Amino acid sequence: MFFSLKPMCTAVALVCSSVLVNDAWAQDAPPPASKLSRAVAQNDYMQPAIPRPEQDALAAEKLAAFEAKTGKKPNILIFIVDDMGFGDPGVYGGGEVIGAATPHIDDLAAEGLRLTSTYSQYTCTPTRAAIYTGRLPMRTGLIRPILAGDNIKQNPWEGELSVAGLLSDAGYHTMLVGKWHIGEGEGMRPHDVGFDEFYGFYKAQKEYTQDVYQMRFPDLVLDEDKLARYHSIGSDNNLIFGQKDGTTQVIENIDSIEKMAEGDKMLRDYTLKRLEELAQGDKPFYLSHSFMKLHADNFPSKEFVGKSASKFPYRDNLVEVDAYVGDIMAKLETLGLLEETFVFFTSDNGPQMDSWPDSGYTPFRGAKGTTWEGGVRVPGIAYWKGMIEPGRTSDGLFDLMDLFNTSLTLGGVSFADLPNDRYYDGVDQTSFLLADNGESLREHVYNWLGSKLTAMRMREYKAHLFVAMAQEKFLWIDMATVVPTGLAPWLFNLYVDPKEEYPVGHRMNAWTASLGAELKAHAATFKKFPPKDLGL
Amino acid sequence: MFFSLKPMCTAVALVCSSVLVNDAWAQDAPPPASKLSRAVAQNDYMQPAIPRPEQDALAAEKLAAFEAKTGKKPNILIFIVDDMGFGDPGVYGGGEVIGAATPHIDDLAAEGLRLTSTYSQYTCTPTRAAIYTGRLPMRTGLIRPILAGDNIKQNPWEGELSVAGLLSDAGYHTMLVGKWHIGEGEGMRPHDVGFDEFYGFYKAQKEYTQDVYQMRFPDLVLDEDKLARYHSIGSDNNLIFGQKDGTTQVIENIDSIEKMAEGDKMLRDYTLKRLEELAQGDKPFYLSHSFMKLHADNFPSKEFVGKSASKFPYRDNLVEVDAYVGDIMAKLETLGLLEETFVFFTSDNGPQMDSWPDSGYTPFRGAKGTTWEGGVRVPGIAYWKGMIEPGRTSDGLFDLMDLFNTSLTLGGVSFADLPNDRYYDGVDQTSFLLADNGESLREHVYNWLGSKLTAMRMREYKAHLFVAMAQEKFLWIDMATVVPTGLAPWLFNLYVDPKEEYPVGHRMNAWTASLGAELKAHAATFKKFPPKDLGL
Repeated sequence: MFFSLKPMCTAVALVCSSVLVNDAWAQDAPPPASKLSRAVAQNDYMQPAIPRPEQDALAAEKLAAFEAKTGKKPNILIFIVDDMGFGDPGVYGGGEVIGAATPHIDDLAAEGLRLTSTYSQYTCTPTRAAIYTGRLPMRTGLIRPILAGDNIKQNPWEGELSVAGLLSDAGYHTMLVGKWHIGEGEGMRPHDVGFDEFYGFYKAQKEYTQDVYQMRFPDLVLDEDKLARYHSIGSDNNLIFGQKDGTTQVIENIDSIEKMAEGDKMLRDYTLKRLEELAQGDKPFYLSHSFMKLHADNFPSKEFVGKSASKFPYRDNLVEVDAYVGDIMAKLETLGLLEETFVFFTSDNGPQMDSWPDSGYTPFRGAKGTTWEGGVRVPGIAYWKGMIEPGRTSDGLFDLMDLFNTSLTLGGVSFADLPNDRYYDGVDQTSFLLADNGESLREHVYNWLGSKLTAMRMREYKAHLFVAMAQEKFLWIDMATVVPTGLAPWLFNLYVDPKEEYPVGHRMNAWTASLGAELKAHAATFKKFPPKDLGL
Repeated sequence: MFFSLKPMCTAVALVCSSVLVNDAWAQDAPPPASKLSRAVAQNDYMQPAIPRPEQDALAAEKLAAFEAKTGKKPNILIFIVDDMGFGDPGVYGGGEVIGAATPHIDDLAAEGLRLTSTYSQYTCTPTRAAIYTGRLPMRTGLIRPILAGDNIKQNPWEGELSVAGLLSDAGYHTMLVGKWHIGEGEGMRPHDVGFDEFYGFYKAQKEYTQDVYQMRFPDLVLDEDKLARYHSIGSDNNLIFGQKDGTTQVIENIDSIEKMAEGDKMLRDYTLKRLEELAQGDKPFYLSHSFMKLHADNFPSKEFVGKSASKFPYRDNLVEVDAYVGDIMAKLETLGLLEETFVFFTSDNGPQMDSWPDSGYTPFRGAKGTTWEGGVRVPGIAYWKGMIEPGRTSDGLFDLMDLFNTSLTLGGVSFADLPNDRYYDGVDQTSFLLADNGESLREHVYNWLGSKLTAMRMREYKAHLFVAMAQEKFLWIDMATVVPTGLAPWLFNLYVDPKEEYPVGHRMNAWTASLGAELKAHAATFKKFPPKDLGL
């Protein structure tokens, strides 16, 4: 069993599609799941899910009552913090423990639904692409962050549908405020691919500071030749305003650390202003408020320097992000929009450790750039006053891709109307979030590391095919080699071993074999729907 | 500096007293603290503390108002869970994450003060002795758990004062319900040393199950000769009822796993019954409700088998303990005692890992039996309706020994009346807990591992002189060697490195030197007040 599984998955990872043709699992029919799986396939182009018809009905009733009362669809507000660790917010075990209290995020959790098994991709671009397309990076080709200097073979957005575009077509005003990081050439910008409005930055925080941060990068900043070549890559350092009609304006050139330190404040101000204006209009909105922070290099806004108990810039920035979450929520309240807005708070991946001590905190093994829990398990809080039961915590599986499906359902877009020429990996989790005592409809979370299918979680079990092994004590993307496990996948029980220290698969053959079969079935979905290769 | 410090501390650890005579720090006057310390010594026999006169005044006012209103002193209820990890309760990052929701403990925290830097000793007996005497195990001689078969040179309680005895003299009814583990011979039993009433077990959970738990200990259980010798040690397996006058009754012989599984239920029932009776009386009570659980081996009460999401016995037991906390708090409410009772919830040390997978969870390095954070940092929740501001979290240092001083202050016993022929290590934290926005009065937490002074925390810094190093991936008491650090102590910043992975002392010389000086001053307190040697 294992002998055949491992080479196959390796092959999928490396060759991406062709070797699957002769595999027994690769049928046109939905791939068979193992007997241990509760998931049911509805067709061959969507992720199988756990049927929960009763809670689906309850949630549908709730939504219908909401629409009857308000006469419209709900607003959708998604907060994405950059590189925040699972353990950073107080309610996830950090906060005061790491010298950075997060009262507003904690309040959001206390008054909402705190998810303890929310999964991102292993890095930024893959996660964001997955949230907006509902598809795994391996399908869209966005398998790693786009970097300044990258030559991409084709526009990754060609032929893709974004949640923003679909909701815009359905009558929403769709906005991205903040970080994008999924292409900055024409045709790849947020306002080219479905967002009616964009106010923010194309790239990650560090791209705005590495050529001016002399203390950390003297080799670049103090070397005229290198600096000139770096700038000649052509990637600009601007705060951009863009509109659906193609209008693209430079709001400000970010040419200093001081300016970038105020980046999130500018984003906060913009969101507050636009919320006031949007509250006057008739359209519901879909807003992704994507913080530039807490990505390295961290520079707090003037107002927040030394405001954390720890005083370290990352910690001050966590306090700053928390304050802005509070400001935006307070504005929703003032505008009377709390009961009309579905809010989701999360991070795009685990903490980035190569900037330590200015790094986030995860209690788990690994960090950003790995598919250990530390790399892919992130905070996830769903809040909707009057619609989501307050004070609940659930360990039900949630993949950030599920925000695609769930947002469409909230916005009244039917999946039946979407083209079936591609595979959708998200699961509609509307009833998990909305029904009192709702349970997750997701049975599997697949972890991809670039083009490698490395692991999968199912219930509290996680099976690894490849693991990132540290060269040193700290484990991060630049410090790890990714190696195949032994003869069999490594199976962990995350309830008794949340830090993934002791594999138990040898004692639990049926689970190891079944999770292996599930991984195989997942890999087989790439046969009918081959992955895109952007040359990344 | 380091060269002189290390041998001294090692010497203190090994020889315990004599070598300090010629040391420059060893004066009769209070030892000088480093310039970085905010603590002030009031005399030479009490732990120096941070002066906070304003909040002390506020707390004193609050207490006076309470007494004026109720005409009595407050009840004191201390929950001690056995071997529960820092990360086990939901509010500390566990709960649903580890497949064991803890809604009642979470409520206590939500409605009370959640402390994130509460410290125990490295194992059970030392912690319990410290809570009841307010003195470090090195002073009382109780430097490690008392084991069946131990020959102790002298009664460790000889000459000691217990918080229970002092409060009993001051008009309290003092009770221990549950685990004792500080001696079972006459003169060492709870009802011999200050508790008016004892209902519980002398030893740890495992002593009640190891001679009947065939699946785990077949080498003992199935070997008649060994079993007979084991029983001949004379340690009995009884549930005991004892009274101050010496009356000692066997309530039940615990001769099976099934009976022991119901141990905590019997304790819960007893506490509920006695609370009803005590509510009728005039006396305030001091009650230490000390769970037998979650010590290995874990066997849930019938009612709780499979009640956790994880289903593992430890997890079921966590759910059971949580439910009993809820039952006892509900009883206080029904009896109208919530506003008259100071409640503190904690664990006696970090998780015991040698029983894995039936073990607790700590996000930190190490486990029970080490002085890494994983071994000594425990949950700590203070609750008092109407007297402690609800919903607060503080990272202020709190040593469980502080419960000695704080309980005495709540009970109206003045420290000035205590004999000055011994050293008291606790700090009165009444105003930290009671004053709105109160801050900790403790500047240092000293970590002792047996007779070794291994580490100290001061603010967010922790300096190690000796560290437990794992033989294997898992780190627990039986798997570690305790070795001195290199030339200098290892200094960690716990805010940026809560998992103690990266020492930073070389970059922070002043802190390393100052914490070294503080450790030296602490060691010097053993000159005037030499440690007891019980031969443990």
